[in-house]
Formats: sequence, structure tokens, C-alpha cells
Amino acid sequence: MNPLFEPDSIAVFGASDKPGSWGRQLAEGALRSGVDVQLINLRPGQLKTIAFTAAPERPVDLAVIAVPAPAFPAAVDTALAAGARSVVGITAGLAPSVALQIAQVVRDQGAVLLGPNCLGVYDSLSGLSLLWGELPAGDVALFSQSGNLALELGAIARRTGLGFRRFASLGDAAGLRAVDLLPQHGDARAIALYLEDLSDGRALVEQAAAIVDSGIPVTLLAAGRSAVGAAAARTHTGALAGDHAVLAAACRDAGIRLVRTPTELIEACRVVPRVRGRRLGIVGDGGGHGILAADLAIAAGLSVPRPPVDLAGAGERDLSAYAEAVRNLAATGDVDCVLLTGYFGGYSADDPAMAAAELEVASVIGASGGDVPVVAHSFAGFPPTGPSASVRRLTAAGVPVWPAVEHAIEAVAHATTPRQGMPELPSTVDEAPSGDWYFAGRALLPEVAFAAAERVRDADEAVAAAERIGYPVVLKVLGRAHKSDDGGVVLGLRTAAEVTAAFGRVPASPAYAVEREHDLAEGIEVLVGARRDPGFGPVVVVGAGGLLTEVLGDSVVALAPVDAYRAEEMLRDLRIFPLLAGHRGRPAVDVTALTRVIVAVSEAVCRTAGLAALELNPVLVTPDGAVALDCHGENVS
Amino acid sequence: MNPLFEPDSIAVFGASDKPGSWGRQLAEGALRSGVDVQLINLRPGQLKTIAFTAAPERPVDLAVIAVPAPAFPAAVDTALAAGARSVVGITAGLAPSVALQIAQVVRDQGAVLLGPNCLGVYDSLSGLSLLWGELPAGDVALFSQSGNLALELGAIARRTGLGFRRFASLGDAAGLRAVDLLPQHGDARAIALYLEDLSDGRALVEQAAAIVDSGIPVTLLAAGRSAVGAAAARTHTGALAGDHAVLAAACRDAGIRLVRTPTELIEACRVVPRVRGRRLGIVGDGGGHGILAADLAIAAGLSVPRPPVDLAGAGERDLSAYAEAVRNLAATGDVDCVLLTGYFGGYSADDPAMAAAELEVASVIGASGGDVPVVAHSFAGFPPTGPSASVRRLTAAGVPVWPAVEHAIEAVAHATTPRQGMPELPSTVDEAPSGDWYFAGRALLPEVAFAAAERVRDADEAVAAAERIGYPVVLKVLGRAHKSDDGGVVLGLRTAAEVTAAFGRVPASPAYAVEREHDLAEGIEVLVGARRDPGFGPVVVVGAGGLLTEVLGDSVVALAPVDAYRAEEMLRDLRIFPLLAGHRGRPAVDVTALTRVIVAVSEAVCRTAGLAALELNPVLVTPDGAVALDCHGENVS
Repeated sequence: MNPLFEPDSIAVFGASDKPGSWGRQLAEGALRSGVDVQLINLRPGQLKTIAFTAAPERPVDLAVIAVPAPAFPAAVDTALAAGARSVVGITAGLAPSVALQIAQVVRDQGAVLLGPNCLGVYDSLSGLSLLWGELPAGDVALFSQSGNLALELGAIARRTGLGFRRFASLGDAAGLRAVDLLPQHGDARAIALYLEDLSDGRALVEQAAAIVDSGIPVTLLAAGRSAVGAAAARTHTGALAGDHAVLAAACRDAGIRLVRTPTELIEACRVVPRVRGRRLGIVGDGGGHGILAADLAIAAGLSVPRPPVDLAGAGERDLSAYAEAVRNLAATGDVDCVLLTGYFGGYSADDPAMAAAELEVASVIGASGGDVPVVAHSFAGFPPTGPSASVRRLTAAGVPVWPAVEHAIEAVAHATTPRQGMPELPSTVDEAPSGDWYFAGRALLPEVAFAAAERVRDADEAVAAAERIGYPVVLKVLGRAHKSDDGGVVLGLRTAAEVTAAFGRVPASPAYAVEREHDLAEGIEVLVGARRDPGFGPVVVVGAGGLLTEVLGDSVVALAPVDAYRAEEMLRDLRIFPLLAGHRGRPAVDVTALTRVIVAVSEAVCRTAGLAALELNPVLVTPDGAVALDCHGENVS
Repeated sequence: MNPLFEPDSIAVFGASDKPGSWGRQLAEGALRSGVDVQLINLRPGQLKTIAFTAAPERPVDLAVIAVPAPAFPAAVDTALAAGARSVVGITAGLAPSVALQIAQVVRDQGAVLLGPNCLGVYDSLSGLSLLWGELPAGDVALFSQSGNLALELGAIARRTGLGFRRFASLGDAAGLRAVDLLPQHGDARAIALYLEDLSDGRALVEQAAAIVDSGIPVTLLAAGRSAVGAAAARTHTGALAGDHAVLAAACRDAGIRLVRTPTELIEACRVVPRVRGRRLGIVGDGGGHGILAADLAIAAGLSVPRPPVDLAGAGERDLSAYAEAVRNLAATGDVDCVLLTGYFGGYSADDPAMAAAELEVASVIGASGGDVPVVAHSFAGFPPTGPSASVRRLTAAGVPVWPAVEHAIEAVAHATTPRQGMPELPSTVDEAPSGDWYFAGRALLPEVAFAAAERVRDADEAVAAAERIGYPVVLKVLGRAHKSDDGGVVLGLRTAAEVTAAFGRVPASPAYAVEREHDLAEGIEVLVGARRDPGFGPVVVVGAGGLLTEVLGDSVVALAPVDAYRAEEMLRDLRIFPLLAGHRGRPAVDVTALTRVIVAVSEAVCRTAGLAALELNPVLVTPDGAVALDCHGENVS
């Protein structure tokens, strides 16, 4: 029995009978739950209704606390003393350090703390509803870091016929975090998350990936992913915000669907049956709906191998035409999923004469596709009174129905997106590198071919090194970022005299490198990098290299480590991949050698605990191999 | 008096008293309009209610015709004979050629034809409602090519408190087209268009641009913009579909907002006050709403110079805190617009005790911004019963309110997007070029510097030409596309012997070009092209050139002709622009010379009637100028 969602008894600290107060709202919710309830108020005599007491008189399972902040620690102690196994902290305004101390006290007693500064908790089966407002019952589990946003999500869900199996508001998340709540979804059909703090992102997506694997889709709305948004998130919860590209990569690897808006978060919770491929068949009851769906499907990365079927009024004359059109389209074998788009679902709402016929078709239309799943958009099936009988019938028969076509299409597109799978993190063994990164990187990456180079201190040593390496050579001042911008790199030195002269043109430094010069025109420049994200741990990045890196922003991120297969997938997702594969008559370059570099960099950042970032840019990839021409890095500070 | 929207008398051809029939729906609509109505049915004796006649007995202003297709032409003749100045064709199933003939007959009588195969016509002020279903009244003009989609737009508008000033369903658009209807908006506050056929796109956007200039925003949902969507559009209306990039360019130049979904089309019709810049200030009544709005604003291209204000319950305690926060934020001078996001607008719906206070704040919150406009998102202000009293009050006080925050932000972003302005088309004077394009392009573009080149027939002529031009040279086989892919181009010829030898390696041809070779490493390769779009006329394209053209797809399209200022703006919108401007210590190239090439190409496609397409790729742009290294073209077939 879950102490947070299925308590046997409840104590409401700060209960009140004042209309519009939190204390009243919680008291009423507790009393509706049907379990033993104790209403606690330090001044029970001032309250006129039912039995308030100044302290619990019987053991307590769940304590919900809505007292002023100064009284919160004492209330928690009282609750724990009364045997509480879960504490829901509604109280706002506690200093973060105080909240963390209290969370530790609760944990030490073997109990859990939700909040403080949270909106409460809800369970549709146990009848628990300790929160502000009311939530519609349903089969979605919602865990939200913002209470106000949860209210909006509840309003959207109610409007579109969805509801919640369980809900918990994280508030300041001093105790329970999203990663703790995820497994407590209560056999929900879908899980929706609204989060701002992703400082334990890796653990969170690992947990979510396991749930996705068990067949329950997880959707995430993460706020604070833009620069300014992130600044606001810090002031809001004191949490570091995750970088959006890393978040997107982590979600892709874990199979989590990442959305942008509250509406998308709710609409993602209609569960799509398993879809085997990206070919969408479309049945519209008007030409416009069919064309529009095709446009949106293609924009979402689906293919539309057959022109949309336009029923053009045939469905209105005989509703069985809908099922017939679905059956015929599925039978072609050309589609992996059929989308019904337009009016269907609304006849039963608008026209009593057609209700029976529509319900009958709604019952069979899912099965009409045979083993091809059917999904639907119905613009007429969601009147203000709620989903029509036909929409409910369709849903019960395994055909999810959306009020807006774009959400149906995005759901199908997500259902067909292959999951990457979560990489396992190796144990870390190495310390942080020391010395300048140009040579430290070589030591860290024995699997990578670097341009032949030697470390030198002056012109004489440089000439001797150049003679050993072979001309032409490059002279680099060590230990500077963006060396090519400020005269710290001299290219194309072909003689000893040129090497000596170059020393007159570079900034003075205790150390330099003399490096074999490679002709960039002989290959493609690629960036291979990795960094340790504060929330998501080691990640690896590939992208267009050299001068184009910042200009194109053409890059792909993945959780590290990656294997050779995943490394090649990353390369295929680059816009510049055709250049690697051999474009317009040019020879293909050695992609296999490049994937070995990517794998090596991804493993290095995983095993080297002290490494914050590592970047090879460019790696010059030619038909004959891949050679790294530079290396930067950064240790964890 | 407008004969389509404000008729003095109506005749309904095919009127009926059968429940659920079009004839009944139209008859009832006509009778509700309050003007003289004649109900026409060829078998009036079979009808039981009111006065049906077999033909008009009095003059007719508007005739709406819903008879079977074979009877349609005769009904139109009868209507015109009775003096009809407008004919609304509901009848479906007419062959396109027949529909066009009838449209001509109507036009010859000085009347107008809407449809056939349309859903009807509506006017909120005249009380005209000749259509299937009912539309909510309001201040938006809607012209839609799909009747079924118009029903969805009506449902969305009703749900979110919007409605229509005028509506016309274009159907097969044999007579009236969108360009004809646009000026008949009836002083609507906003215009929404759903279109599939954009074959008269240039005229349409010119008309729309004039309306946008008059202060009435125009929003377009265009279906069939993807490849498969376009194929479906052809089968649907027999119209050629426009290419999406051209459509987007035309809309940007005209100031038309282009949207993707029916919901976006309706939500774009809430009118945003004039916004001077892209700096958005945000007031949220919870931290989550503020952060989320900041994320979405930045993604939409706005800036958020100050952290979102988090009222954190202060608004609930005293609703005037909302107006105070708006006032303080506007007074900083750091923002061009304030967005209020969250619960506000919902108190009057949820809590009668707070209704009066919220209405009072709603009345003054717009003015609280001073000269900084205020917009709002209210998730609680749109219950199933319709917009709350506070939402209506806000709207009346000049603060548009959206049920979803993303639509508020997209509207502000569009309001701050500078209009490009429509270029004027010059009169065409030149014929189509003849001969091979490599040299024909030079003749067409005297303002453009091409690589020195001569046309030759054999090796001897080639050597002589090379001596005059100067080595190294390139040998090109003329009259082939993608010459570099199939051995039709030989680079780097440095002597007469090499030129002669090259002739043994290229395909035989009646003509070749010998061209001065330029070192691509000395500059940036850019594509400059133009084409005559079937719907939108001449357009010009700039993009990454050479091998990167297809790989990066980095390009910008504009309606032609463009001037030097607009040409430079186009370049600035390229991802590769930093390479032109001088990236990481490299010298800037001669952008002015490049803009002259763009202007010249854009003018050439405008003035040359027979030209379908023209492409210079690459134009090599160096610090010293811009030289075109190749030219392809295509005449109108």
C-alpha cells in the first residue's frame, strides 16, 4: 500500500473552515476520501464546524501540512511522532536549506516528504484528493513541479476528455523528486511530467526509459531550456537548468517524448497503438482535411504513400463508408497506420437520428484496419459538454481520438520514432588530465590518430622537430583558445628558415607545438567533442568542423558512451553527412575511422571523472582515415 | 449594397421541407434573414409547409442554388432572368468545364457566382446565413476553399469566444476567387483565409498586402504545400499547388501571417496592438508559467530582457497586484510589450466573490502599460460556457486574451516582424533566350561579371582560346546539367598539351567552353537563381553555392525584383552569412558586388517573359568582387 497515494488515515495540519482557504479545501478533500481523518488546528476553539483538534489523537498515515512557514518544522515533527509515513508540504516560503533539513528528518524516520510549496496529491482509485481545485479522473499519471501549471493541465485535460490516475505536485522537491515518483504511477496508461529542475537528469531518464520499455509512454514538458528561461528557473527553484540539446538527446535515447506546450503535454497522453513504420494512410470526410493532414504528416517526418481518401459526403449518406474506406486503405498494404480526420465522432453529438449508426461504426472502425492501427481526429466530437458518445466508443475500441489533427499526427510520428536505447555508464577510473590540452588529449585518446607533432620551447627545437616530422609544418602556441583568431597559429611553413621566422610573429609562450600540416582540401573537417553535463552526465557531440562549426550549427548530441553503430547513426543525422558519403562524384571518406574517434572520445569522457569537456576540432576525415588536428579540453572546476 | 452579403431579396432553388436536407437548411436560413424570400422547388405540390413555387414570381437579388447537378445550369438561367446579381452555387458534382461556362454566363450578366460546390455565405450584420450549420457572430472575415474545414474553424472560434463578420465558402471557385472576396471583408477586424488553389498567388498577396497596410491583419492557412499534399490538391480542385518556400516568401513580403493548423488560423485573429520591438516582458502568477512563456518567446524570436515576474500568490491575495506588476514592468522601459500569463481572467468564472474585483482590474490592466501594449494568456478564463466576463472585459479594453500561451506569443512575434513590402513588377520586354545557356546567360546579364570564357568547337580552337584567356583554364562540355558529375568538366588545365589531352576525356559535343579557372579557396561560393512561379510570378533565390547547395539547403527566397537593400537583407538571412562578413579572422568578401548580381538576376527574370528559371552557381565572391562561374537556365515550355 502506497503511503503517499493510498493512506489509511489522514491528518490535515492547518485545517480550517474558512471559505476559500487552503485549510478548508484540504479538510474537505480529506473528508471525501473515506478514510480516518483528523483535522488539526492550533486554535480549534475558533472553528465552528466538525471536530478540530490541536494535535493528532490517533495514529496518522499521511499528514498534509498547510500551516504558516514558521510552524512547519514543528508540525512535521508532530506528524512523524504520530506515525506519519508520508508528509505533503503545502506550506510555502521555507528557506531551501530549512526544507532540505526537514526532508532529511522525514527520511530518517523512514517516511517521505512531498513539497514543500506544493499543490498537493491526487489518486483516482483511492479517492485521495488533497489539492487546490479538482482534477478529472482518468488514466494519466501527472507529476508537476509547478502547481499553477498543473491547474492548467487539469483544465486542458477536462476539456478534451482526459483525466488523471495519479497526480503529485513536486513543489520545492526537497524530499521526493520526479525520479522517485515515476515508479509510483499506479499502472497509469501514460505519464506526463512538467519539470524545471533537471539536475538529476541522467537518473530521471534512466528511470523513464525503463517505464517506456514496459509499454507506458512518458512525455516531458521541461521549462527553462532557453538561456533566459534558464536564468528564471534558477531564481525559481535554485536548480541549474539543463541545456536543451542535451535534454533532447537524453529524451531521444530514453524514448521520452519531449513537448513544447501544456496542450501538447496533455494531447500526448492519448496512447497510440504500436505502429510499425512511417507510412500514414489518410481518410478525410472532406478534401481539405485530407490535404491538411498530409501536409502536417510530411512536416512531422511521416510519409503519405497514397493520396488522402476524400469521402466527399459519402460518409454522411452512409456512415459505414468510413469503416469501408479505412478497411480498403489498410488492405492495400501500403500504410502502417490509418488516420481518420474530419467530422466523424460528431454525428452522435449533433444529430440524434444518426447517433446509433455512428456508435455502431465507431465500435468496428478500429478493427477495420486489421493489423494496421487506426487513429482519429474529430473536430465535431468534442463539444463543450465533453467528448461525444462516439468519441468515447472509438477510444474504448482502441482508436485514440484527438480534437486537433496536428496532435494526432505528432503522436503517430513519435510512436514510429525508433528508440535509441540508453547507454550504460562505465565506472570511472582515470583522474583529470594535467598539462596543456594539446598533448594531454593525445594521452587520453590512444585510439585516435593525431597529426604528428612535437612539443618545443624555442625556434631551434622547432626546426629540429620540423626536420624529423617533415615539411610543411604548422607552428602553434600552446594553451590558448581560438588560436587561429589571434595569430597563435602559423600555417604552411616549408623550410627551417620559415619556421625560425614564424617565431617572430607569434605571441611569446613557454611552449609551442610543431605539427605536420595536412591539406584540408583532401578531406572533410568534422568536430568530435564530449562534455560532462551537470544533470545528464557524459554526452558526446559530432558536428561540422573547422570554420563551419559556429556558422552552420550542424551537430548531433547523444548520451555517452556510444558504440560504433550509434556513432555512425549520429553522423547520418548531420546535414553534412552527404559530404562524408561522397557527394556529386567526390570519393567517400573513411567513416569507419571517424566512428572510432567518436567512440574513443565518448568513452574518454565517461571514464575520466575529472574531465568537464574535450573537443577535437577539426578531425580531418579523408578517404584514407581520420586524423585529429587539434585538441581542447577543460577539467571539472 | 453588396449583392452577395447584403441582398434585398433571396430565392432558394431546391428549397425543401425535408428535415436534415440542404434545401431545408437554406430555406430556414433565408427566412431568418428578414428580407423577401422565394422558395423554389420544381415540384412545389409535394411540399407541405409554407409557400413553395416552381419559379420566381418576383425579382430576385441573391439566388442560392442547391438542385441536382443536371438542373443547375437551368436554375442559374432562371435566377439571372429574375434579376439575380449574385448566385451561390451549393450544388456539387459539376464538371469543371461546365462550372467555368456557367461562371462566364453569370459574369456576362454583370452578376457574381460563388461556388459551385460551396458551403454557402454568411454576414453577421445583414443577418444572412445561407450555409450548412451555424457560425458564431464576431468580427473576423473568413474565406475558405473547404466547406468542411470552415465548419471546424467555426467550432474552434465558438469554443474560444471568436466569431465571424462575414464568411464565404469558395467551393470550386469557378467564379469568385479569394482575390475577389478579400476586399469584401465588411470592415472586419481580421481576415482568415483557408486556400488550396494559389494559381493566382501574386495577385492575391498584392491584394492582401493592401489590406494589411490598411491595418487589418490577414492570416493564411494554405494546404497542399508539401509534395504529397500538392498532389492531393490537384486531384481535389484541379489547381496547381504552390511551392512552400515561394509561398512563405510571398507572405513575408506582403505581411501576411502564414500558419500551419486550423487552431492557429483562428487564434491569429485576435488582434495585437502595434508592438514597437521584440522585447517581451512577462508577468506570471506562478513561476512555471513565466519560465514557460520565456522559453516559447525566445523560440519565437522574441527577446526576454528581464526575468519573468512571478506573482507567487500575491495576485490571489490582492488582484490589483496584476495591474501593479504590469505597470512596473512597462515603466522600466526595457520591454516593448507585456504578456500576462496564467490564471488571471478565471477568478470571475470560478469565484463569484472575486468577480467584481477581477473585472475592475481587467478594465485598467491594458492602460497600466502606458504606451506599452499588454496581451494576455488566461488558462482559467475560457470555461466550457465561453469566455469569462473578465476575458471579455480585457478584450474590450484592448488586451487580447488567448486560451493557450503559445498563440499569444506567436501573435506578438508576428506583430513585431517587419514587413518587407511588395516589389512592383516591371513590364516584360525581352523574349526567351536562345542557344546554350552558358553563353545565353551572359547576354541576359550584362551587369554580371562572368569568368573569362570562349566558345570553341575542337581542341585547336580550345588551345587558341586558352592562350588568349591565360592558364589555368577549365574545359566544359556545353548544354548538359550537372556537368561536374559525369566528366563533362575538366579542371586545372595549365598547358596547351593538357588542353588537347582533355579533349580525349570529355564526351563528344558540338560545342565546348574554355574558361579562366578561379581558385575557389579565395572566396565563398554562393548560388544566385530566379524562377517564374506559376502562381507567384518571378522569384529570386540566394543560397550556399557549389557542393554545399544541396547538402545545406541554406537558401532565402523573395518575390522579384529586389533592390540592393533587399538583396543584402536576403544574404543576412543565410546561415552562411558570417562567412561572407568575415569569420574568425578571414577577410570579408565583396557583398556589394554580390548584391548587384542578385539584383541583376531578379530583374532579368522579371523582364524576360519566356524565362522559366535562371541559375548562377557558383558565384565566387572574393574580397575583390563577385564572378559567376556557371550559368543554367530554362525557358517556359
